Amino acid sequence: MKAARLYAYDEQMHVDLQVEQVDEPKMTAPDAVIVRIGAAGLCRTDLHILEGVWKDIQDPHRTLLPYILGHENAGWVEEVGSGVRSVKKGDAVICHPLRTCGVCYGCRRGEDMYCENARFPGLNTDGGFADYLLTNERALIKLNPNVAPIDVAPLADAGITAYRAARRAAKQLTPGQYCVVLGVGGLGHVALQSLHELCGARTIAVDRSEAARNLAKELGAHHVLDGGPTVVEEVKQLTHGGAHVVIDFVGERGAEQESWQMLRQGGTHYVVGYGGKVEVPTVHMVISEIAIAGSLVGNYMELVELMELNAEGRVKLRAQQYKLDDINRAIDDFKNRKIVGRGVIVP
Amino acid sequence: MKAARLYAYDEQMHVDLQVEQVDEPKMTAPDAVIVRIGAAGLCRTDLHILEGVWKDIQDPHRTLLPYILGHENAGWVEEVGSGVRSVKKGDAVICHPLRTCGVCYGCRRGEDMYCENARFPGLNTDGGFADYLLTNERALIKLNPNVAPIDVAPLADAGITAYRAARRAAKQLTPGQYCVVLGVGGLGHVALQSLHELCGARTIAVDRSEAARNLAKELGAHHVLDGGPTVVEEVKQLTHGGAHVVIDFVGERGAEQESWQMLRQGGTHYVVGYGGKVEVPTVHMVISEIAIAGSLVGNYMELVELMELNAEGRVKLRAQQYKLDDINRAIDDFKNRKIVGRGVIVP
Amino acid sequence: MKAARLYAYDEQMHVDLQVEQVDEPKMTAPDAVIVRIGAAGLCRTDLHILEGVWKDIQDPHRTLLPYILGHENAGWVEEVGSGVRSVKKGDAVICHPLRTCGVCYGCRRGEDMYCENARFPGLNTDGGFADYLLTNERALIKLNPNVAPIDVAPLADAGITAYRAARRAAKQLTPGQYCVVLGVGGLGHVALQSLHELCGARTIAVDRSEAARNLAKELGAHHVLDGGPTVVEEVKQLTHGGAHVVIDFVGERGAEQESWQMLRQGGTHYVVGYGGKVEVPTVHMVISEIAIAGSLVGNYMELVELMELNAEGRVKLRAQQYKLDDINRAIDDFKNRKIVGRGVIVP
Amino acid sequence: MKAARLYAYDEQMHVDLQVEQVDEPKMTAPDAVIVRIGAAGLCRTDLHILEGVWKDIQDPHRTLLPYILGHENAGWVEEVGSGVRSVKKGDAVICHPLRTCGVCYGCRRGEDMYCENARFPGLNTDGGFADYLLTNERALIKLNPNVAPIDVAPLADAGITAYRAARRAAKQLTPGQYCVVLGVGGLGHVALQSLHELCGARTIAVDRSEAARNLAKELGAHHVLDGGPTVVEEVKQLTHGGAHVVIDFVGERGAEQESWQMLRQGGTHYVVGYGGKVEVPTVHMVISEIAIAGSLVGNYMELVELMELNAEGRVKLRAQQYKLDDINRAIDDFKNRKIVGRGVIVP
Repeated sequence: MKAARLYAYDEQMHVDLQVEQVDEPKMTAPDAVIVRIGAAGLCRTDLHILEGVWKDIQDPHRTLLPYILGHENAGWVEEVGSGVRSVKKGDAVICHPLRTCGVCYGCRRGEDMYCENARFPGLNTDGGFADYLLTNERALIKLNPNVAPIDVAPLADAGITAYRAARRAAKQLTPGQYCVVLGVGGLGHVALQSLHELCGARTIAVDRSEAARNLAKELGAHHVLDGGPTVVEEVKQLTHGGAHVVIDFVGERGAEQESWQMLRQGGTHYVVGYGGKVEVPTVHMVISEIAIAGSLVGNYMELVELMELNAEGRVKLRAQQYKLDDINRAIDDFKNRKIVGRGVIVP
Repeated sequence: MKAARLYAYDEQMHVDLQVEQVDEPKMTAPDAVIVRIGAAGLCRTDLHILEGVWKDIQDPHRTLLPYILGHENAGWVEEVGSGVRSVKKGDAVICHPLRTCGVCYGCRRGEDMYCENARFPGLNTDGGFADYLLTNERALIKLNPNVAPIDVAPLADAGITAYRAARRAAKQLTPGQYCVVLGVGGLGHVALQSLHELCGARTIAVDRSEAARNLAKELGAHHVLDGGPTVVEEVKQLTHGGAHVVIDFVGERGAEQESWQMLRQGGTHYVVGYGGKVEVPTVHMVISEIAIAGSLVGNYMELVELMELNAEGRVKLRAQQYKLDDINRAIDDFKNRKIVGRGVIVP
Repeated sequence: MKAARLYAYDEQMHVDLQVEQVDEPKMTAPDAVIVRIGAAGLCRTDLHILEGVWKDIQDPHRTLLPYILGHENAGWVEEVGSGVRSVKKGDAVICHPLRTCGVCYGCRRGEDMYCENARFPGLNTDGGFADYLLTNERALIKLNPNVAPIDVAPLADAGITAYRAARRAAKQLTPGQYCVVLGVGGLGHVALQSLHELCGARTIAVDRSEAARNLAKELGAHHVLDGGPTVVEEVKQLTHGGAHVVIDFVGERGAEQESWQMLRQGGTHYVVGYGGKVEVPTVHMVISEIAIAGSLVGNYMELVELMELNAEGRVKLRAQQYKLDDINRAIDDFKNRKIVGRGVIVP
Repeated sequence: MKAARLYAYDEQMHVDLQVEQVDEPKMTAPDAVIVRIGAAGLCRTDLHILEGVWKDIQDPHRTLLPYILGHENAGWVEEVGSGVRSVKKGDAVICHPLRTCGVCYGCRRGEDMYCENARFPGLNTDGGFADYLLTNERALIKLNPNVAPIDVAPLADAGITAYRAARRAAKQLTPGQYCVVLGVGGLGHVALQSLHELCGARTIAVDRSEAARNLAKELGAHHVLDGGPTVVEEVKQLTHGGAHVVIDFVGERGAEQESWQMLRQGGTHYVVGYGGKVEVPTVHMVISEIAIAGSLVGNYMELVELMELNAEGRVKLRAQQYKLDDINRAIDDFKNRKIVGRGVIVP
């Protein structure tokens, strides 16, 4: 089959993916499933992988290369293992990013990201920038009849990551309260829509890009700010004392510090974007009784919920298609911010 | 009446409190209550007040001095305002540290610490190192018949602060999981006992003092560590991967950084002690999906719950008495760590 | 002042209210507030009071009559007691139906309905079918600038009762799940709107009246049923096995039995309407692991939240005005189902 | 192998189980595991099965007989399927009563009892009154090193059923509140111990048998009542207005009606025992805002938690052993209430 493989990490990202013929994946276990890829989303994490940012975590023994990237996958079931009952050949599916075991405590609690035996196709094993992907039964969600793989692939990772954070925020927010969304990009614009569906609180979208701010307005954000140097004061004024929740999709260049400063007493700062460092005096944490909480991808049921909202047209994702042969051009466009919404690779 | 008043802040703490005759407090509002002090606990915060640490928060306009310290108060109702229904003269009571309004959103939600109109006797108005204290009806909890003010005064602040953190931890802990208590002093030893009553998780007590470690063992901590330089590794080994919750009663000198490093994926670090700064890379917060949360005093109902556990003998406080005339000796003993348990001032 | 008073209970409801001149209410306590009535909603409970249904609960010693009905009140502050700080003369307000004490455990927990010292104007003391009403500071919510008392009075009781049930349901519902609303009348239509704002679940509205079903469609219910004899089967089919939550605003004539039969395993049936009896085999409760839960009025903060949704135009109430002099005609119209939406009495 | 099989349902229970030689179970799927039985608990449900109470649910097509009873199983892993990773031959294990699929929504949410594809050995397929049992990987919990199968088998069903109800109760109970445990038999005595470990509330044990009451006292129940005709009034007096939670392990002969009548406003009645019918006026449910909730077995993680408490000696089960050959004598003793604690069958 055709696949795009990485042969070397390079901090300068001068490296291209190699689009080439490779062997098709083989069934390895009774719960294995091979999916014919319909589309695979291109994610900022892919850029970080090329740069080698993740190599010590994803590839500690340097045995992974060459391998196939792509962790936001959707397509059709091609072949199922002997123990598989819930899907069959031909089913249209989206793939939860993790291949989980179903028997560890993490899986039992429904938190797939905590699975002690998980593989993460596209990160630490072959992913979906290819004709076929090897995953397992527990990763698959059947698509609603009116939904095609190409419409939803990026929801598999960008989507649930935003959704999980929004869902956690929504659980603690009530009508009249305020939630700040810092960064209205691929994740932030899903979070905004999700917040509007999941709770009655008001949203304040913050982004330095005018296009992002326009998108936020279009999606119904109650307030939109440009994230200038007075953003903390602006939020405090709008919210009469501070936001109840801030979701930070930036996580660097100062956003990670502004986030907790925008909170009112008892508020929560969700960290989703990363890169920077949170530095907060303990006395401030105590007197303001704030919480700062990381949020990681999302679990299977969260992806199920998001797919329901998407199938009903309540949370949508914008995307732009590239052929697998053009993947290096897609990566370039992504680096140069030329992609509107999310880039999607089609084999 | 007799009272111990502060006349000047002094970083060196060379200053003494002045024990002198002052006017008795006067009724100021329909919900006011005057309490004849039975006992008032001496708290580390009192030392910080003397040092001037809190002066910008408690006394921003420098109009407070001279004033009476003492914010852990218990005694007997002496006089009640015209609107007071729930207590009457002679009732033995413990005083929640805040005098709250009962009509703001903070009060409505039961979180007295968030009251927008609160006064904090002993911090920003006259406190309980005196014969009488002015507070209000909403601050008072009637003592169980078998309990005397002198037995419980420090529960009013040290007690609920520890209890609230333990209670929040207990809500997320299950049997087989692990909770680390960093610092087994006045607060930590209440937290340990509370955890044992509120959930079935295992406790790991950490303290550099041998006396504190012995106390922890006596109180039934499942593991006791001395907090040496390998404490993070020791906790990870004991817990097979990291603690589910860490409650940090130290908050400085490195404890605030070790705390979140001891957590397993999905764990929570409660910040109660303060002084240092939490510095954590956003990427760690995301990948480990940890939460770091401040915990502030406690609300009225939490003090009610703690008083129930205390009345049943399930959570006890150790204390040593001093006469009001000897308050400066008590302060010296406290500074020199000569007090076993908590110091209590008796008028 | 002018007021409408009840002089006798009568099962046949042949009795009229007496519109007559009475003394204005007098300030009785430091927290008392007198409100000049802008509007007072007419509620089915008022009919039940006339019939004497509630007399043993509201008037056990038969000392209440003659008294003024009206428990859904909004207007302007006229006079405040010496201890009142949060409102002042002229403020436009809506009145939480209960006058609560603020010091009992019920109030501390934020559940105003559990107040041990509450009065309920219009039920067990003079209400709002009059020029003035005596209530207290804790009952008052200031209206948003763009909201007039006449627009919102019925939210004070009908509104929050529906909102509380919807809010409890929303907390356990996720996108893709189903909530049945049985009865789309004064309460049900608020519940529907609230569910759509508070969670991403799908709603199934059930009502025998075509007008009510049309209203449900207009408000965006995902499915609308006519509540015929096969309704349980219809719901099971639509929901692929049963609803996750059913909110029953009828509570009699069979609805109270159909409600729990519509649930899937693990589902919850909220009882809001009353009259009938729930009869369920324990073995069914266990095997299906369902819960059946009463829901009572709502607390102060829930009314605050509802007022926020209302002020933003997200939850609206339909109403028809009557002059206080015409209150008996309003009651007749209500009995004969001639009122569209809610009847509102204006002094 | 040797096994005890049922050949006919009989309302009079004159029927014996047939102890006979049968084929050993065969591996059927990659996740299958064969367990060599160490012990299997005898449960009241076994008597109900003999009587035919469950035949329409467990055996709707009457194709089950003859089959092996026994659903409280513990032993040692004998053989594992090709997909099994978490256990190996020789491991001592306890079996969660359900063999679940791990891919349906019920399993994803961690609620094994809601598994859409589950088998229940001993109920609808061969159980553990035999030398060997066929189950699957997801059902198995490895025992702590100091625990033997014979000590814990009945925890697999009686234990978690009690534990789940106690755990749900504990989540809503606080120190100073009251939980009634109706029936201190095989389940109730586990619930009592669990409540004491999981929360700081007070317990009131109710049982008509003196032996059961003595056991309750020994286990530290705060109050013990004999369940006479005034029990509702006694509980209301002890609790100053009603219990916060009642767990009913009886579910028939009037207990199911007394249970909700003992509650205070806002209280919850958990239904675990069954046989009778709950009949409650909707108006009472609303005014008292009570909840009545079924509780069903327990999930895998709840059994893990219970095993941790058991391994630490905090929740223990009393049992009496019988040889598999004597199983009919054990059943007779059970019927005639001659067994102290739980009967356990050893192959």
